Amino acid sequence: MNRATPKAGRLLGVGVGPGDPELLTLKAMRALGEADVIAHFAKAGNPSHSRAIVAEHLRADVTELPLYYPVTTELPSCSDGYRDAIAAFYDGAAKEIATLLDAGKTVAVICEGDPLFYGSYMHLHARLSPRFPAEIIAGVTGMSGCWSAAGLPIAQGDDVFTVLPATLSESELTRRLAEADAAVVMKVGRHLAKLRRALQTSGRLPRAIYVERGTTAEEKMIPLSAKLDDEAPYFAVVLVPGWEGRP
Amino acid sequence: MNRATPKAGRLLGVGVGPGDPELLTLKAMRALGEADVIAHFAKAGNPSHSRAIVAEHLRADVTELPLYYPVTTELPSCSDGYRDAIAAFYDGAAKEIATLLDAGKTVAVICEGDPLFYGSYMHLHARLSPRFPAEIIAGVTGMSGCWSAAGLPIAQGDDVFTVLPATLSESELTRRLAEADAAVVMKVGRHLAKLRRALQTSGRLPRAIYVERGTTAEEKMIPLSAKLDDEAPYFAVVLVPGWEGRP
Repeated sequence: MNRATPKAGRLLGVGVGPGDPELLTLKAMRALGEADVIAHFAKAGNPSHSRAIVAEHLRADVTELPLYYPVTTELPSCSDGYRDAIAAFYDGAAKEIATLLDAGKTVAVICEGDPLFYGSYMHLHARLSPRFPAEIIAGVTGMSGCWSAAGLPIAQGDDVFTVLPATLSESELTRRLAEADAAVVMKVGRHLAKLRRALQTSGRLPRAIYVERGTTAEEKMIPLSAKLDDEAPYFAVVLVPGWEGRP
Repeated sequence: MNRATPKAGRLLGVGVGPGDPELLTLKAMRALGEADVIAHFAKAGNPSHSRAIVAEHLRADVTELPLYYPVTTELPSCSDGYRDAIAAFYDGAAKEIATLLDAGKTVAVICEGDPLFYGSYMHLHARLSPRFPAEIIAGVTGMSGCWSAAGLPIAQGDDVFTVLPATLSESELTRRLAEADAAVVMKVGRHLAKLRRALQTSGRLPRAIYVERGTTAEEKMIPLSAKLDDEAPYFAVVLVPGWEGRP
């Protein structure tokens, strides 16, 4: 490297949408064309979902920086063990990216869905944006992909719309489902039996739609009341449409 | 037209994103290329926002079908007068589009943001999708555009995220703002003074960001506590980020 201090690089948080590669934006495409380095998160030992979405658009000469979570669902996210491990991981990833930015590189962190909506990128953004120019490229969220694939109008007019993590207690889920006009429940995974009871108690089960991997080739979609088991992957969602007062 | 019954056309609900034309998806671009007719909603006498977003991509030979709302904010949306006028408008628009679909045309209804998230398209979808093949192309929502433009991580981890219409009563707004980890308040318009009081009472005012026309050339963004007046257009939003328990 030249001894003169190079111009600091740019950090890009790039939303790549819910899964269908055609739901990439023109702006995300431009970022993929301009970036020196493409960083992506993945569970250790697994391919990156966000990388799979953009695979056909990666330049042959681009540098890739995979970032492997040290833990995902093995520890409860409220435990000290999880928080310490994940904070150290984000610190290390931010340091590695800072070195690239200091060297003048443009680093695009590609993110499923939208970067600032329940995404890991925001942990890097919080650590790096005070020191480096950072730009967010909004993306189509996973939940938009799911309700669009289902052709399910989700919220309208004066509806209150709520996103709930399935990790909430059964009583909290029940109360909040009863209070929202429309809801999306995320992180369903091992919580489906509890969620089903909360939907039943709140009267929302008849309208609930279960979706896995919306907009991808592996998409599965079924009214929850017709799903016979309580098996679900972590990324499954349940949609509860509002919009009962339509004109 | 040929006397033989033509193959029925396709209805496309096309999300065109929050305002920046670069936030169009590849799939929306393809729809613009394939559609025989592009339909867009607008307030009578005003240009269509969604048309402005795609203007540079409209084919010279495409047919446009503007759909002008008979009323917008002149009547309260809960009044019989509003509901009757708007229902008749959607019935008429659906009938006009059905004639085109019966003639074998592909009709793309372009929608700001995402078609099934607080959009007018869903009223056409509900009327037409039982009779014609209909496809939804998810889009980047207006709210994603706003928090991305603000560089503001909105929700993370086990946050509960809520979208509230500013039309709710002050007590409902206060209660729901206090209960959500993260919130977006839409349809701010004439309700800003009331919303400001609700944010103050719920303790959320210090974190609230006011945004107008996010991602467009007319974008305005300011901490709400620093905004000195309570003037706001209908489409302004207020963002209240969650994410206080970050690792």
